[in-house]
Amino acid sequence: MGAPTARAVTRHPALRSLRCIRCGDHQPVDDHPRGCPSCLKYGTPANLACVYGEPDATDGVRLPYAGAPTLGEGGTPLLRFDTTGDLDLRLKWEGANPTGSHKDRFSALAVARALHAGYEVVAAASSGNAGVSLAAYCARAGLGCEIAVTDDTPGHVVGLMRDLGAEVVVFPEAEQRWRHLAGHLDSRTVLPVTNVAVPPVGSSPFGIEGYKMLAVEIRADLDGRLPDWVVVPASRGDLAWGVYLGFRELCGSGPVPHLCLVEPFPRVSAVLGGADPHGSFPGGTSVMPSLAGNSVALQALEAVRLSAGRAEVVDDAAATAGTRRVWRSGLPLEPSSAAAVVAVEQARAAGAMADGSLVVALATAHGMKGM
Amino acid sequence: MGAPTARAVTRHPALRSLRCIRCGDHQPVDDHPRGCPSCLKYGTPANLACVYGEPDATDGVRLPYAGAPTLGEGGTPLLRFDTTGDLDLRLKWEGANPTGSHKDRFSALAVARALHAGYEVVAAASSGNAGVSLAAYCARAGLGCEIAVTDDTPGHVVGLMRDLGAEVVVFPEAEQRWRHLAGHLDSRTVLPVTNVAVPPVGSSPFGIEGYKMLAVEIRADLDGRLPDWVVVPASRGDLAWGVYLGFRELCGSGPVPHLCLVEPFPRVSAVLGGADPHGSFPGGTSVMPSLAGNSVALQALEAVRLSAGRAEVVDDAAATAGTRRVWRSGLPLEPSSAAAVVAVEQARAAGAMADGSLVVALATAHGMKGM
Repeated sequence: MGAPTARAVTRHPALRSLRCIRCGDHQPVDDHPRGCPSCLKYGTPANLACVYGEPDATDGVRLPYAGAPTLGEGGTPLLRFDTTGDLDLRLKWEGANPTGSHKDRFSALAVARALHAGYEVVAAASSGNAGVSLAAYCARAGLGCEIAVTDDTPGHVVGLMRDLGAEVVVFPEAEQRWRHLAGHLDSRTVLPVTNVAVPPVGSSPFGIEGYKMLAVEIRADLDGRLPDWVVVPASRGDLAWGVYLGFRELCGSGPVPHLCLVEPFPRVSAVLGGADPHGSFPGGTSVMPSLAGNSVALQALEAVRLSAGRAEVVDDAAATAGTRRVWRSGLPLEPSSAAAVVAVEQARAAGAMADGSLVVALATAHGMKGM
Repeated sequence: MGAPTARAVTRHPALRSLRCIRCGDHQPVDDHPRGCPSCLKYGTPANLACVYGEPDATDGVRLPYAGAPTLGEGGTPLLRFDTTGDLDLRLKWEGANPTGSHKDRFSALAVARALHAGYEVVAAASSGNAGVSLAAYCARAGLGCEIAVTDDTPGHVVGLMRDLGAEVVVFPEAEQRWRHLAGHLDSRTVLPVTNVAVPPVGSSPFGIEGYKMLAVEIRADLDGRLPDWVVVPASRGDLAWGVYLGFRELCGSGPVPHLCLVEPFPRVSAVLGGADPHGSFPGGTSVMPSLAGNSVALQALEAVRLSAGRAEVVDDAAATAGTRRVWRSGLPLEPSSAAAVVAVEQARAAGAMADGSLVVALATAHGMKGM
């Protein structure tokens, strides 16, 4: 039982460059884990995004790499999910991905990039789902994998990563993971694919492209309609930004669905209310590790701004109660995902989502790993 | 957040009767948890199977009920999976079902039947996956759920069932669960959907119909080809029998793929070698609870016989070593599922699967629940 597939990874022929989402400068198609080099100099780092040349003839989105080993990610079901009130709420059930979370979409492309560029090891910081996912995709691709976690990561989750062949390194504090990853930046063999920057920029722009398929699938699941709102649990906004990019590519210069980012305490909401985006935001969560972190990445703000969206705070108590209700309706979502349903209820009650709205909440991960 | 969908369950208009797989007698479309009443009198109980009237015009299979609440089961990926040797091995990755196992296909239809017939509670015996799955589908449908387990079921797995709203009752021995379920047989409110009979017959024939979709999906995934072999982890053979029924319906009177049942110690293999099928088979497993049990159901034997198939024993040591290798290739399969990959390797080495064969192994469940 060897490496299961040939490494016939190809780069999209129209992939031209990477562009900074803050200053717009173009960079070569390469790995820039600290984000835009120009903005980094000014202390305002920002992520890059893939730029393709001629428009595609197909009615879909373009992905930077093809032919990488897959575990069958994507194609997850969109479920009807009634709540009280007059919303048409659907859940995009990302727990049906191979390792149980949306991260598999990211991992497939981040690992494809690593293979194409000739790296031997993929490194990442993770609160759980990303680490399990990357461990699986690296194993599938025959690459090494190193996952940096904090010491409060459940032992069962660390065990999953290790059983999938990853080396797991443990740190007391979240930001220590990032500094550890940054230590790989001079390496030509180890590729960090999650954030290494303080303040954060977000994860690999190649991996983030994988989330664009959510926009494609949601539109197809709705028979060509677009939702009014897409509700996205968020930490540094990789997922929200990728979903935005997908809808933007599908919609050309037309309107895209509004994104509602869900966070455990005010971060994006605070910035939208006037706070300094480069600050540290007080707060924490003990039940939503996937959404932790005290900083804001520009890509999260841009996903909200460019979609005329908003942010909704769901605190631990509300997430815990919501998780219980969601499980009792048959859906074993981790609290970070159930928070998306709670966010819809809160937003509706606050009048932020009009009656009759078609709302898709991203149920990002199942709760069967013990997270 | 109430019961999420209308109970607009409809019965397939061509569903005519149930037929005993041993004696061929027809029974009305009703619930017969002890199997064929005629054969029961002779001490040789056997399961029933759905019989439809006029052939379907569509190029697929018929399912007994439609319109029940769904969690998005089915449509799982078929993955390429190289092994040493000259087989083309694919894995049907059933861990991508909503609660992480193939059982979701069964639960969707078993719960549909319960809704259509007006029951209030679904009851089942389970080693883990079926219980989690039925708990979720009952919650989704607004039905009660009672799961009987043995006291060696992992606490985390019992916790998943309870968090999904099921009542879990615990017994020291596996067969005590069946006797407990049999106590519901006079009820008009509680429907047992897994085996209640000793010797066993298997689970609800309505639920088993859900497994027919595997045949449809596998053929579609292979662009219309049929595999030479389908490898199926088995206990009492619900899955193997359902997969056989699916291929039989697709293939009319033509040949179907050979089924290779995987078991942790000789049961079906022993019967194929001349042992009394009604006997108790010595042996056990401490790593494959999904495949436990010391008896053989006729449906398992029939799946082998009617497909010109075979059985392969994968013991605990081989399953444990195989699980480790499968995880290191990126697939977090529970040992009962990894055993299917080991079975292929053993069968190939023994010359039981010819070089060049196209083989589909059913990777029945992910191992992220801690099973």
